[in-house]
Amino acid sequence: MQRDKLLMTPGPTMIPHRVRETMARQMIHHRTKEFEHYFEKMNEGLKKVFQTQNPVLTLVSSGTCGMEAAVVNAFSPGDKVLVASTGVFGDRFVKIASRFGLDVQVISVPWGHGVDPREIEDFLNGPKGEGVKGVFVTHNETSTGVANDLEGIGRLLNDRDCLFIVDAISSMGGMEVKTDEWGIDIVVAGSQKAFMLPPGLAFVSVSDKAWAAIEKSRLPKFYYDFLAYRKSLAEKTTPYTTAVSLVIAASEAIEMMLEEGLDNIYARHRNLAEACRAAVKAIGLQLFADEKHASDLITAIKGPEGIDIEKVRKTMNLQYDIMIAGGQQHLKGKIIRIGHMGYVDGFDLIRTLIALELSLSQEGFPIEPGTAVSAALKVLKM
Amino acid sequence: MQRDKLLMTPGPTMIPHRVRETMARQMIHHRTKEFEHYFEKMNEGLKKVFQTQNPVLTLVSSGTCGMEAAVVNAFSPGDKVLVASTGVFGDRFVKIASRFGLDVQVISVPWGHGVDPREIEDFLNGPKGEGVKGVFVTHNETSTGVANDLEGIGRLLNDRDCLFIVDAISSMGGMEVKTDEWGIDIVVAGSQKAFMLPPGLAFVSVSDKAWAAIEKSRLPKFYYDFLAYRKSLAEKTTPYTTAVSLVIAASEAIEMMLEEGLDNIYARHRNLAEACRAAVKAIGLQLFADEKHASDLITAIKGPEGIDIEKVRKTMNLQYDIMIAGGQQHLKGKIIRIGHMGYVDGFDLIRTLIALELSLSQEGFPIEPGTAVSAALKVLKM
Repeated sequence: MQRDKLLMTPGPTMIPHRVRETMARQMIHHRTKEFEHYFEKMNEGLKKVFQTQNPVLTLVSSGTCGMEAAVVNAFSPGDKVLVASTGVFGDRFVKIASRFGLDVQVISVPWGHGVDPREIEDFLNGPKGEGVKGVFVTHNETSTGVANDLEGIGRLLNDRDCLFIVDAISSMGGMEVKTDEWGIDIVVAGSQKAFMLPPGLAFVSVSDKAWAAIEKSRLPKFYYDFLAYRKSLAEKTTPYTTAVSLVIAASEAIEMMLEEGLDNIYARHRNLAEACRAAVKAIGLQLFADEKHASDLITAIKGPEGIDIEKVRKTMNLQYDIMIAGGQQHLKGKIIRIGHMGYVDGFDLIRTLIALELSLSQEGFPIEPGTAVSAALKVLKM
Repeated sequence: MQRDKLLMTPGPTMIPHRVRETMARQMIHHRTKEFEHYFEKMNEGLKKVFQTQNPVLTLVSSGTCGMEAAVVNAFSPGDKVLVASTGVFGDRFVKIASRFGLDVQVISVPWGHGVDPREIEDFLNGPKGEGVKGVFVTHNETSTGVANDLEGIGRLLNDRDCLFIVDAISSMGGMEVKTDEWGIDIVVAGSQKAFMLPPGLAFVSVSDKAWAAIEKSRLPKFYYDFLAYRKSLAEKTTPYTTAVSLVIAASEAIEMMLEEGLDNIYARHRNLAEACRAAVKAIGLQLFADEKHASDLITAIKGPEGIDIEKVRKTMNLQYDIMIAGGQQHLKGKIIRIGHMGYVDGFDLIRTLIALELSLSQEGFPIEPGTAVSAALKVLKM
């Protein structure tokens, strides 16, 4: 039987039928009351998901462009910024900020660990800490399965003359981000992760403190000039033709999220992550990420000694039609990563764990059939 | 009866069912053979539509970002460039290039007229012409209904050490662009016009001559760095997560275009334009654009003396469910614009003309019913 693929990757993720259906509709024009209805609905919903009173801007772009837009809108060449990098996506902030001529300071946290807010505090109080105008943190580092403590970092940045900028591309909508309460100035989210949407939109919230910096920024920009988006947003529109079908889909997906309830969504993801970790440990595998900072949205697992873990991943994909992710950069061939974000439930996780068991067994890794599933079911709230 | 809207606007345009259906499919991952199949199919098709051997890069963005990317990738601050502006979108090139610190020279053609290639030649041979590194031209200026003579301009630029950069956002796929033969170095196209797709993708072809300039450009960029896209394209992928559903839709839409045949598509658009102009003149209205440079894709019509043309446009929309466009900037309230680009045929045009007749009559403009339709039918190849 030719089965549909189940995506258990850290994006793109599965899309519910109710959302997919909207994208098959005939096109409508973007400068109409009809489109405005969807746009407003999306925007109001985004504020709830972001837990913010700030405007949330929508860019037609990949998440990376949202990260770049945060850098280019809020800073000027030579500005000193600090990136607390915990993996591939923290490093991407370093690359982008360096490319645009910022003075980039880096705290490189060993992969698999979360950043300790005290490390950031020590840096800012230390000899190189003077004049840091922005601190960049990845919320959910999908390359390692780590979630960073935004609340703790926000607390220590609150009284400083420094912007707090967060890549929540893969976390927003799946793990709680209290944008305003935690004092986050710019938050970037992506459509193709917990939002249950195709890739193509980046959502960016901007605080008053950030707007003040943006008005002073000397880096040139046009397409993603936040000031143009703010002006258009006040007129319930976008400066350039937006991705109409994706915005309509977003209004529907966010409606589904609000129907489920944000707290229920966060609890579902946390429960899936706990069940996944319990199952993985029950069959004798080791987690890659420090459990204190384990993500609710992605679980990174070390390949066991003597097992070709890339082959296991391929078997899961080719034989059982379940796509998970491998390791990136130096972790290639060393870890696998199971995404459990967005439109995913206990049945999807169980299916994934069965495929993992079977694929590991094929490689000679000894497992009593059903061990992972039993362990997961003891934890899962189905 | 609640009718579906017919979009006769200069984008977004109508989307055939066959293309819309692809976007309701379940998501697939972008780093897979399955996605590669669609991506390759789109890329091969794009080369045919662009009539080029150059790589055609796909950005997740509005068309405006494609224009900006052309500026930022190929030039450095202080570089002298010439924009031949024939309306809103020519002026946008001026704004973008100025924003990024280029030395922008402008030929401002009166709105409604096309640029005379000799004007460009005279400029380049004149006192300010020395050192011009790039000439920017809008192919199809939707704000005025004018199409510029790319072939003529290309011919005079051929032997010069100067890049020829074309905004073909609204024309590509609807009017012929012989990218290689006409010596165009960078061509930007958009998905939501003649390609019969939703907004969200920009397509950009880049010549060898342009690549040489790109390698020397000193303007910082990351998200739309063409060098990263070229590298990824060689590996049949994109540097960042692309808009999967739009790429799959594009592969389908371009397949439909190639099935119809590009020459047939160009002839269909030309015929629609001729019929539209004949009909408009038959009911005593005047064309806004100089007929020598009339676009095949959009017809701009002057509002007749004493008639509130904005009201006519609204009646067409609210009573007859046909959306056309009004005038932009100083032409607001003075012209209407009928788009006939992409998924549009003679029946759609006839429907539009009937609505135009009826809406004009309601405002007291005298028309013998059926005049426009008869005139159009004499020209239309249905």
